[in-house]
Amino acid sequence: MADTIDSTALDQLFLGARTANKWQERDVPEAKLTELYDLLKMGPTSANASPARFVFIRSAEGKEKLRPALSAGNLEKTMTAPVVAIVAYDLAFYDRLPFLFPHADAKSWFTGSPAFAEQTAFRNSSLQGAYLIMAARAIGLDTGAMSGFDNAKVDAAFFEGTSWKSNFLVNLGYGDFSKAFDRLPRLPFEEAVKVV
Amino acid sequence: MADTIDSTALDQLFLGARTANKWQERDVPEAKLTELYDLLKMGPTSANASPARFVFIRSAEGKEKLRPALSAGNLEKTMTAPVVAIVAYDLAFYDRLPFLFPHADAKSWFTGSPAFAEQTAFRNSSLQGAYLIMAARAIGLDTGAMSGFDNAKVDAAFFEGTSWKSNFLVNLGYGDFSKAFDRLPRLPFEEAVKVV
Repeated sequence: MADTIDSTALDQLFLGARTANKWQERDVPEAKLTELYDLLKMGPTSANASPARFVFIRSAEGKEKLRPALSAGNLEKTMTAPVVAIVAYDLAFYDRLPFLFPHADAKSWFTGSPAFAEQTAFRNSSLQGAYLIMAARAIGLDTGAMSGFDNAKVDAAFFEGTSWKSNFLVNLGYGDFSKAFDRLPRLPFEEAVKVV
Repeated sequence: MADTIDSTALDQLFLGARTANKWQERDVPEAKLTELYDLLKMGPTSANASPARFVFIRSAEGKEKLRPALSAGNLEKTMTAPVVAIVAYDLAFYDRLPFLFPHADAKSWFTGSPAFAEQTAFRNSSLQGAYLIMAARAIGLDTGAMSGFDNAKVDAAFFEGTSWKSNFLVNLGYGDFSKAFDRLPRLPFEEAVKVV
C-alpha cells in the first residue's frame, strides 16, 4: 500500500501549481516532450483506447498557422509560449483497439455508433489532456490550458483530410509568475460533493 | 524552476500505477475523501469554472441505487469497491462564476448558449475526473474508472430534479493486484504525436 507522495510533489502538481500566462525565455527541448508523452500515455482511458493525439507546436511556422484561430485574450501568451500543445483526438481511434485492448473485440463497440465513438473520444482525450497537464508539472514544466480558440480553424489548418479533431490547447514552458494575480477560489467540499 | 518529482511519486502517479478491479478489505474513511477533494479541486479548468460535482457512494443503500445502472462486466468490482465516485457536472455551473472568476462577466459567456455550456461542463468535468484519479493515486488510493453504465439511470436515481448530470464513475479503495493482467501497451510517440 502506498503512502501519500511527498509535499514537494503535492505542491508541484496541485497545491502550489499555477496556470502560466507569461513565460521565461527558456526553451523546452524536444527530449522533454518525449519524456512528457512517456508519462501521460500511462494514464487510464476507457478500454485503454487512448484516443488523444498531440501536436507540439515549437516552430515559428507552426505558430503562424495557429495564430488566426486564437481568441484575442489568448494571443500573446500563446504566441510567446515555447511550446503549444494541441490536445486532439482521432475519431477513428477504434482502429487501434486490436493492439491496445486485445482481450475483447472492442472495435465493434464503436464502429456501429459514430455518436458513441465521438463521445468516448472527447471524454477520454479530455482525460488525457489533464494527464498532460499533470505530467508536465511533474517534470517541472508550467502549463496554461485554454479552450478559447476556433476549433474549426485549427482542424482546417492542422488536420485537413485526417480523422483528427482538436479538443483544447495547452501552452508549455517555464512560467514567469512575477505579475501573477492571486489564486482564484474553489468551491467548498459541502457544495461540490455529496457523500451517500 | 521546479525539478522532476521523485521517482516514487512518478511511479505512484503514472509509471507503476494500475487500474484496480479487485479490492483489499480496507475501508476508505471520509477524512480521506476530504483530502482527495482538497487536492483535485486545485486542478485548472476553463475560467476556473470548476463544473464537476462528485457523489462518493460509501453506503450499502447508495450502492443498491447504483446497481441497476451498471453494465454486467462492471458490476462485481463496483459493488465491492469501498467507495464509488460519480464524476458529474452541473449544467448550471455558470451561476457560480461571479465567485469563481470575478475578473470578468464570465457568466454571460454561457447563459445564452446551452450547447456551449454543456460542452464546457463535459470537457472540464472530464479534466476534473482525471485530476481525481491523479489526486487519489497521490494519497495512496487505487482507482478504477469506467464509463460502462447507463447515465440516464444514474441521473434518475441520484440527480432527479437537479441540474447535475453524470459523466463517468471511478471506484476508489486499496487494490488487490495479485491476479492482475499484464499491463496493456500504449501508442508509440511517433504515432500519437507530431512536433511541428
